[in-house]
Amino acid sequence: MRILIAPNSFKGTLTSTAAAKAMAAGVATSFPDAEIICCPMADGGEGTVEVITNACSGVLEQFQVLDAEGELIEVTFGLIPKTGQAPLAVIEVAEVVGLTRLSQPPLPVEWRTTFGIGQLLTHVTAMGVSEIMIGLGGSSTNDGGAGVLFALGARFLDSRGVSLLPLVGQSQPAQSIPEVLQSRVERLKQRICTTEKSVEVRRGTLPDVRKLDFSAIEALLNSSGPRLTILADVQNPLCGVAGSTAVFGSQKGVATDRIEAIDGLLNRLGELGDTWKGEPISRRPGSGAAGGLGYALQLIGGQIKSGAEVVCELSGFDAALPFADWVMTGEGRSDRQTMDGKAPAIIAAKAREANIPVTLVSGQIEPNAIVDLQRIFSGGSYSVSETGPAPSPEEASSNLRRVCETLRPV
Amino acid sequence: MRILIAPNSFKGTLTSTAAAKAMAAGVATSFPDAEIICCPMADGGEGTVEVITNACSGVLEQFQVLDAEGELIEVTFGLIPKTGQAPLAVIEVAEVVGLTRLSQPPLPVEWRTTFGIGQLLTHVTAMGVSEIMIGLGGSSTNDGGAGVLFALGARFLDSRGVSLLPLVGQSQPAQSIPEVLQSRVERLKQRICTTEKSVEVRRGTLPDVRKLDFSAIEALLNSSGPRLTILADVQNPLCGVAGSTAVFGSQKGVATDRIEAIDGLLNRLGELGDTWKGEPISRRPGSGAAGGLGYALQLIGGQIKSGAEVVCELSGFDAALPFADWVMTGEGRSDRQTMDGKAPAIIAAKAREANIPVTLVSGQIEPNAIVDLQRIFSGGSYSVSETGPAPSPEEASSNLRRVCETLRPV
Repeated sequence: MRILIAPNSFKGTLTSTAAAKAMAAGVATSFPDAEIICCPMADGGEGTVEVITNACSGVLEQFQVLDAEGELIEVTFGLIPKTGQAPLAVIEVAEVVGLTRLSQPPLPVEWRTTFGIGQLLTHVTAMGVSEIMIGLGGSSTNDGGAGVLFALGARFLDSRGVSLLPLVGQSQPAQSIPEVLQSRVERLKQRICTTEKSVEVRRGTLPDVRKLDFSAIEALLNSSGPRLTILADVQNPLCGVAGSTAVFGSQKGVATDRIEAIDGLLNRLGELGDTWKGEPISRRPGSGAAGGLGYALQLIGGQIKSGAEVVCELSGFDAALPFADWVMTGEGRSDRQTMDGKAPAIIAAKAREANIPVTLVSGQIEPNAIVDLQRIFSGGSYSVSETGPAPSPEEASSNLRRVCETLRPV
Repeated sequence: MRILIAPNSFKGTLTSTAAAKAMAAGVATSFPDAEIICCPMADGGEGTVEVITNACSGVLEQFQVLDAEGELIEVTFGLIPKTGQAPLAVIEVAEVVGLTRLSQPPLPVEWRTTFGIGQLLTHVTAMGVSEIMIGLGGSSTNDGGAGVLFALGARFLDSRGVSLLPLVGQSQPAQSIPEVLQSRVERLKQRICTTEKSVEVRRGTLPDVRKLDFSAIEALLNSSGPRLTILADVQNPLCGVAGSTAVFGSQKGVATDRIEAIDGLLNRLGELGDTWKGEPISRRPGSGAAGGLGYALQLIGGQIKSGAEVVCELSGFDAALPFADWVMTGEGRSDRQTMDGKAPAIIAAKAREANIPVTLVSGQIEPNAIVDLQRIFSGGSYSVSETGPAPSPEEASSNLRRVCETLRPV
């Protein structure tokens, strides 16, 4: 008997590698003769760098960039050797501007920026990689990727041709935010200016944008730069009723009465960018991923792929599946969104197609989703009795192992 | 010492009355001499009818209507005596078209209707009530309230003046939905036609709407009908980037590639309704509540109020607060949305203003929300160790009691 164990991370408690280990320990007790293969999963969100880098025997590297709120942080990315080519770099948005990394109280979403992701892209490009994979899940930003474009050299100009900061917030008049946050906004602006010494940067922000100067990016695209693969799992366009601000804005803290203004700003950026590119990139599915970062990355030539699909291929899951008798997957919390392209759903679809029983073991399962989950997980769906809001990794791991000891493939 | 206990329901496990009872039993153990006052809460969602009716010594009545998918169901509403006036009726949207009441698999959101709520409104109006309170939380529908308007007598006409069914789905060509769902859609259409014997109803649906015939509703408004109070806690307009389809559609199952078309349809309904009314009701805050039902109800003269505020007044919470030494509240699951006008947040704000410690006890607390919650709950926020996806009411109740035994006001 061969058991293929491919969980997503249990967010906040276990990485997917740790979850796979706990599940494997559980089934090894009840099936001591089984051959157990672990393929920890990811789908573009938190943990994607670790999973892909480990699966491909790469190395983890560190680099210092600004986070979404302008604080200096050390982030981790992966470098994966490729035979006969320069290495592949794997980076993840959650690591730089993740929702779970916000300070308390956080800067309002209008002042958060993807600038640090642009710094990281510049860094890995300068290392001479042949390809960059970037996971878009879990971002706290909604800047249309303006921060990334700015860090790569694009300039956003007002009607007089003055370069603006790549920030969504209104600089004049100062919005009614608490004083402590105002000083943090000032520090963020200062840091962006300091980092971009070579250009004249004034204090204005994106609401005044009238023109783009993309000449620096054009140069970048014309040189034989790295291939850019975007790992995303949403189909939203940049703006409008199905756009990033409308659909995902409230989760990130966009106030109801600010949705229209922010969507309008991203729409203007989209028009300017599309005109430069000569293609309606802003309407492409996935341009609305990660607060419009999906747009900016497609504008500079990135291609979107399903994060879970790419990880299934790179982790060896696809190769191991035909020889498996039972597939197990899992995640921290399963609800109806699990069905929308999240790793466990992709795993379930692949197992079903191969006619192999597939079992879901999640930290928690939203009661409303149980019937739908039972339909796609032929081997059943189970929840671990996680107690309290945040069990320690040790508790979570031993609970998960214990549940897996009791499971059978059908 | 006086302790005021005012929890919301613990969705799926405990009503707010049962939760209040369990919490009271817990604190009675540790504070045997305390005077304990229970004010079970609601905020317009599930449980609102029960809470308001009990608090005001009303009676619960039943009536048979169509649910969101066209099945006949018995729903409960409240009748509350008013001195010197006809009684007040309390109804809730969750009871008729609630997300938790959908069958599995559910009809696609495009085919779900608020028709049954219109039937219930007609029924209580015919009973001669002086006021109707309607709680809008937890709906599964996104029909702009067309179903309600139709049941009240409004007619949606195509370009040739033929009356259409109040359904968002395209009738021609049949959308690619499984056969079992197609037969359920046919049954739903048949039931609406049968219920509305007196008018010629053809098979067309709302995407063909060109004209409204609101004469029947006009008559209704001109007569001295009951006052209509809408209990809602969102500020969204009917359409556009901050509208019901854009912001709440995906939670109800609107596919990303259908958002634009459905929003466009609600926009046309809004234009037709606003023209009839002579006022831009569709842009009013709250028109986007309950899939646009907030629009239809305002169109016929309803006034929006905060559900939690109204319940605080009716339940005696406001009257008891000045004499309390400690306030306790709670809910099934607390996350960042708790801060957006949900009952525990309203309770916390009132207690803070009165300078009384307030403690939150919830089934689960989203780890990301803990810091924010600690800021508004001066008496701390605690989660019950609920195990598994859905503890039995008995377990949930005894767990909640046990946690409350250990708490102190500061």
